[in-house]
Amino acid sequence: MSEKFRGLSPAEFFHRNREIAGFSNPARALYQAVRELVENSLDATETHGILPFIDVEIRLHEERPEWVVLRVADNGIGIPLSEVPNVFGRVFYGSKYVVRQTRGVFGLGVKMAVLYAQMTTARPIYVKSSPINSRYVGEYLLYIDISRNIPHVQKMRIKKKTKNWHGTIVKLTLEGSWVQAKKRIEDYIRRTALISPYATIRYRSPDGELIFKRVSRELPQPPEIGKYHPRGVDVEVLKELIRATNNASEVTLLEFLVKHFEGVGEKKATEFLQWSGFSPDTKLTELKLADLEVLASKMKTFPGWRRPRPLTLSPLGADLLKKGVKSILKPEFVAAVTRPPSSYSGHAFIVEAAIAYGGEIPPQDTVMLLRFANKMPLLYDEGVDVSRKIIDSIDWSIYKVKLPAPVAVVTHVCSTKIPFKGVGKEAIADVPEVEHELEIAIRDVARRLRAYLSRMEKLYEVKRKEVTIRKYMGEVSSALAYIVNRDPEEINALIEELLKKELAKKEVRPDVVSES
Amino acid sequence: MSEKFRGLSPAEFFHRNREIAGFSNPARALYQAVRELVENSLDATETHGILPFIDVEIRLHEERPEWVVLRVADNGIGIPLSEVPNVFGRVFYGSKYVVRQTRGVFGLGVKMAVLYAQMTTARPIYVKSSPINSRYVGEYLLYIDISRNIPHVQKMRIKKKTKNWHGTIVKLTLEGSWVQAKKRIEDYIRRTALISPYATIRYRSPDGELIFKRVSRELPQPPEIGKYHPRGVDVEVLKELIRATNNASEVTLLEFLVKHFEGVGEKKATEFLQWSGFSPDTKLTELKLADLEVLASKMKTFPGWRRPRPLTLSPLGADLLKKGVKSILKPEFVAAVTRPPSSYSGHAFIVEAAIAYGGEIPPQDTVMLLRFANKMPLLYDEGVDVSRKIIDSIDWSIYKVKLPAPVAVVTHVCSTKIPFKGVGKEAIADVPEVEHELEIAIRDVARRLRAYLSRMEKLYEVKRKEVTIRKYMGEVSSALAYIVNRDPEEINALIEELLKKELAKKEVRPDVVSES
Repeated sequence: MSEKFRGLSPAEFFHRNREIAGFSNPARALYQAVRELVENSLDATETHGILPFIDVEIRLHEERPEWVVLRVADNGIGIPLSEVPNVFGRVFYGSKYVVRQTRGVFGLGVKMAVLYAQMTTARPIYVKSSPINSRYVGEYLLYIDISRNIPHVQKMRIKKKTKNWHGTIVKLTLEGSWVQAKKRIEDYIRRTALISPYATIRYRSPDGELIFKRVSRELPQPPEIGKYHPRGVDVEVLKELIRATNNASEVTLLEFLVKHFEGVGEKKATEFLQWSGFSPDTKLTELKLADLEVLASKMKTFPGWRRPRPLTLSPLGADLLKKGVKSILKPEFVAAVTRPPSSYSGHAFIVEAAIAYGGEIPPQDTVMLLRFANKMPLLYDEGVDVSRKIIDSIDWSIYKVKLPAPVAVVTHVCSTKIPFKGVGKEAIADVPEVEHELEIAIRDVARRLRAYLSRMEKLYEVKRKEVTIRKYMGEVSSALAYIVNRDPEEINALIEELLKKELAKKEVRPDVVSES
Repeated sequence: MSEKFRGLSPAEFFHRNREIAGFSNPARALYQAVRELVENSLDATETHGILPFIDVEIRLHEERPEWVVLRVADNGIGIPLSEVPNVFGRVFYGSKYVVRQTRGVFGLGVKMAVLYAQMTTARPIYVKSSPINSRYVGEYLLYIDISRNIPHVQKMRIKKKTKNWHGTIVKLTLEGSWVQAKKRIEDYIRRTALISPYATIRYRSPDGELIFKRVSRELPQPPEIGKYHPRGVDVEVLKELIRATNNASEVTLLEFLVKHFEGVGEKKATEFLQWSGFSPDTKLTELKLADLEVLASKMKTFPGWRRPRPLTLSPLGADLLKKGVKSILKPEFVAAVTRPPSSYSGHAFIVEAAIAYGGEIPPQDTVMLLRFANKMPLLYDEGVDVSRKIIDSIDWSIYKVKLPAPVAVVTHVCSTKIPFKGVGKEAIADVPEVEHELEIAIRDVARRLRAYLSRMEKLYEVKRKEVTIRKYMGEVSSALAYIVNRDPEEINALIEELLKKELAKKEVRPDVVSES
């Protein structure tokens, strides 16, 4: 009956539980590895103002048919050479634990790919990196020492740069079911290209080569590194910030709030402290745990905070979103909206939504959903995503949509921290604030669809009348021509003119159908 | 452009990403906390041969209406007092990282509850534990030092036992939305009681008290701690086992296999080594990494391994499963099956499935699904569960099920390691081996349902004929009575007897409908 207790390193934990990070079988693992590498490459480029060029290559291993060699190269800022081993060889390590919108966030994905490669093929990862501000290029062969969660560098070579290239190249050999994964991988690359129209992506696979050339050289404003937003900060965040303050016995609560929180100046901080009953001159060290709990709780509920500024975020914008939707679905109607910034638990977020009708959208029993998060397409686990939950809860007949109908909803959540349900980054959790914003956005575009469908109904009505009139027009004009003794052709032309005039009053012009 | 790199402790990681463990909002967090504590209590009792008595209490905090006080007490084996701080205060720590079927597996759940409590209410967890083989009882107030992932014990009191009680009591104060969570929590408790009919569960909440008394004192055979199964072991597992071998330069490959793997005796090991081209006398230290890769790959594909013995597992059995289904759904037909043990990646598993038809099952457009894993009901994220995937891929008309129909499928996966998709333990990933077994099990019970529905069709046919015969029976017997000059009543009785005899030949007897 005596039980043995022990601890696991994070690498051991994820080696044992790799399904959690999306590495559940050879097909899914290959897809996930591609994703993690491509997303790191996009983060290393556009987040730093560089127009991305990403080169993805998948080839089958010559000797072992169940093995796949995956290579991804980018023109990003590179990785400081001293950091390369930890970035690839230590779970929960990275540069993205800051308040800024990036695709990567967990410090886990690429390590999972390394873990999966070494456990299935026993091959180390090859990394070549040329940091943008360095005169050196480094090459590494490394794997993860799982029980200690540290990188083990098998080979390393540092050279002076001979050409001006900067960026990172990663090569992995892993067990992967290419045949089963290829459709998803191509979908993923295609949708990534559409949501990042300023990127050039070259994709070579056993099926051939695809090149998605950038259609725009206009890079969205890169996100800045920001501070926590005060609404929703919890006790532990406060404790951590105070612990990291050097001279806590001299710093006042007022100074603390101004220094650490987004959109909090002296005036706003004073206003809050008065409202919450704290003295602005209280020193940090005078605050007890119970005080911190009250402070956090007051910070959550204070109605006066400014909305977070979107500097840390990089949304697409309604126009780009519409362009993307049009190019994928070629709909007869599209509407899009970008909501103002909001926040949950100190993280700013912006929700965007689009709705599309007709065109190449097949009529379906449910509303079709395309999901994006921080410009990443989400292809798996739709059934548990907050967007699906909202769409399924909506009575679509309110919006004149009678299912089955050719309707697609596109959602895009940008945040300094997307509340993913799993570390595989496939579904967004139903955090109340995010759910609320998404519902507003979806209902907003749905209302515009209703307006369009109403106009279409009227147009249809008018068309129906036109058909009826035309049916009897020949007879009527003959009769009239006989009565007034004129040429029937002439009468016909007059009636035709009259009809056109009347119809024009009720016509819906095609250029009205796309609005934002 | 210079990026700052850093590492996170596991506790920091899960504090930042609590949605991943199911703590996404106050309602879900309360549900999840109840689950984690109840499942720990069941593991501490039945896994060790003790008939469980679990006492769950939820009450609203007197001063703060958004706070909930949760208390769970059990009569389990208790926790060694020296381990209490780590068990509750260190993420990735526990006694369940062994080859044995338990509800807990990650060493994470209860720590998440502690983390969530301290970040929302700043209150430490209260733990009282009385280990079964100890003369002492310990009481603790503790929280987690998040940045270092270590327990911080605020208060501790160790006393000599004065009564013979053994077990653990845990009390937490956390933000929780009782009103929103209560339906799910009650569902969870109810379904837990049904799948553990040997447990008594007392559940007190603001809505009143429910007691689920054990209906059986028969405890299933507790699972034993086992070894890895050789099929599917990966290179990293081999490396770790060799690393842990003291005298690796003296141990032969043959000895290594016999010592560490399930169902591998000397004969089987010799057979495998011959098949795979390794010499049985090779010393462990002579094996290079490339050799280990080949060894792992051969171990995966060797067709001669024995199926894992189910000693590490504790399935319900088809009978108990049927009883459970009958008591929940009161169906007119039920069939259940327990599959033989199988394995994936060195983990034994057993799949059980039941199908039920009619009774209290409402007719639905899709087949209703009730999922269990290691005797835990899974209530969330059905949309991404492997069982749902299989059910949706089946053409049910093959089984004479015309949807909408009152059909429910119950699946139960038992394993030394359930391949959960997330650490919230709500959905099972589509690991090929598990998916395969589940599909066989579901199709097996579906075939039995088809047989039942066919009989019902025939019965209906016979009934239809009977109705037709009865319609004319009066007239016929009058006519016959007239011809043979007998009493019409007498003739009628004779025909009735004949009809009954004929019908009995085709009748489906009610006791045939339940099969296993």
